[in-house]
Amino acid sequence: MKKIGFIGIGVMGGPMALNLMRAGYELTVYSRTKAKCEAVLAAGARWADSPAACAARQDAALTMVGYPRDVEQVYFGADGILEAVQPGMLLIDLTTTSPELAKRIFAAAKERDADALDAPVSGGDTGAKAGTLAIMVGGEEPAFERAKPILEAMGKNVVYEGPAGSGQHTKMANQIAIAGAVSGVCEAIAYGRAQGLDLERMLATIGSGAAGSWQMTGNGPKMVSGDFAPGFYIKHFIKDMAIASEEAKKTGLSLEMLDGVLGMYRALEELGLGDLGTQALIRYYE
Amino acid sequence: MKKIGFIGIGVMGGPMALNLMRAGYELTVYSRTKAKCEAVLAAGARWADSPAACAARQDAALTMVGYPRDVEQVYFGADGILEAVQPGMLLIDLTTTSPELAKRIFAAAKERDADALDAPVSGGDTGAKAGTLAIMVGGEEPAFERAKPILEAMGKNVVYEGPAGSGQHTKMANQIAIAGAVSGVCEAIAYGRAQGLDLERMLATIGSGAAGSWQMTGNGPKMVSGDFAPGFYIKHFIKDMAIASEEAKKTGLSLEMLDGVLGMYRALEELGLGDLGTQALIRYYE
Repeated sequence: MKKIGFIGIGVMGGPMALNLMRAGYELTVYSRTKAKCEAVLAAGARWADSPAACAARQDAALTMVGYPRDVEQVYFGADGILEAVQPGMLLIDLTTTSPELAKRIFAAAKERDADALDAPVSGGDTGAKAGTLAIMVGGEEPAFERAKPILEAMGKNVVYEGPAGSGQHTKMANQIAIAGAVSGVCEAIAYGRAQGLDLERMLATIGSGAAGSWQMTGNGPKMVSGDFAPGFYIKHFIKDMAIASEEAKKTGLSLEMLDGVLGMYRALEELGLGDLGTQALIRYYE
Repeated sequence: MKKIGFIGIGVMGGPMALNLMRAGYELTVYSRTKAKCEAVLAAGARWADSPAACAARQDAALTMVGYPRDVEQVYFGADGILEAVQPGMLLIDLTTTSPELAKRIFAAAKERDADALDAPVSGGDTGAKAGTLAIMVGGEEPAFERAKPILEAMGKNVVYEGPAGSGQHTKMANQIAIAGAVSGVCEAIAYGRAQGLDLERMLATIGSGAAGSWQMTGNGPKMVSGDFAPGFYIKHFIKDMAIASEEAKKTGLSLEMLDGVLGMYRALEELGLGDLGTQALIRYYE
């Protein structure tokens, strides 16, 4: 496990690829926009002209792209990864995508005597740079054990969650919890503002007790000051929440809070705010 | 400021009164159910037969009762505190109640040349016993400074939030943020359960990142194991959220997440579950 093909060099994939190279892996990269690969190419990565070329003759192929349709294209499309898969190879999708798609990739890999893991991450570009991402992994446990050194070069909290799709399901649970927490912080601030409270003092008072959350500490002050620079894009959060809501409905479960918050974010996206950070939910109340 | 009348010796008021006595204050107490006062009477507090008798000839009168109607009765009713108020006296309502009622008590105290503070607390019975409550205070700042030693005998995070009603408004913001966080944890667990995830592992994975919250750490494991013993009663949370929702609407603000979560809790109360702890929201999804 030394040679890795990495597909999708963006805000997340770029620093993750660099961390793999620092850990001694030989990287070949492919990305839709070659310009985004400058840093990894300068650091010694090779360039490939397609996902298939990137995955060919590698021990493992890793993907970190945008939407489920991109994942589908990169694996199942023309010049896709599956055309280049060899027996014993390891496929790791780091994208947050649908559990159903994760299971399809797992099955396609099995047909070729290869292993696939769904391994979505949490921690944002900061965690990607620092190599401190949480990585939630679904698939077969022996494959997880083989993948562990690779994943631990990019993250700190690397956890095996269960069979194929379980990584994605855990990430969905993560996004559902965020939806509740971020809307709670947002409505608390909207309330406090309407009542004329000193908002910084308010957050400092309530942030250390039962109302406290990462969202309050990390995003609360940005909501108050109007700093909407994206740590995590609204448009990506909408994608994730939509998958979570659909997956829940398939099991007969209606997640009312989630669906409500998803509706608010969609209203913001319709106003053209999809490229703002998720803390811009406060704009919904203005 | 040595002699205090304390009205409302319950799960919260009891340990708070004991902490005041430990700090050297002379306490007189009144409570609807005298049996609940055994511990404080055994510790040396005097008994009074009414709120007025309890507040008479004291430096300060403190109240920690249940609902806004109880606060109203204890201050404005027959044999109420206001009948016994003397110039220079300090009235401190520690109950979570409506900001509007806090302003009425403030005005009534002013008419009698006395000071009133609204000072709702956060931290539950654990915080009350340990003397580590957060206390959010509204009223005039000189009165707050006079009250500070008393409040610091019961709490650690004692903060002046602004004019009369601001303590209650801050507490409302606290409850709004909790509504979001607790529903997020709850829907994440309901989702994970429906998908067959290992829930303890799931919480451990997502609890340390952007989805993390006090609610996830404190209430998540109880939701998973079905431990619904009340740290904070559903019926009291409903009271608080209803006040917050009404206060928001007065300013033209609609808090959709809050109203949604309030509706879920009301459905549970209709099923007779109002005496369970707020983590029993998971029952809504079963």
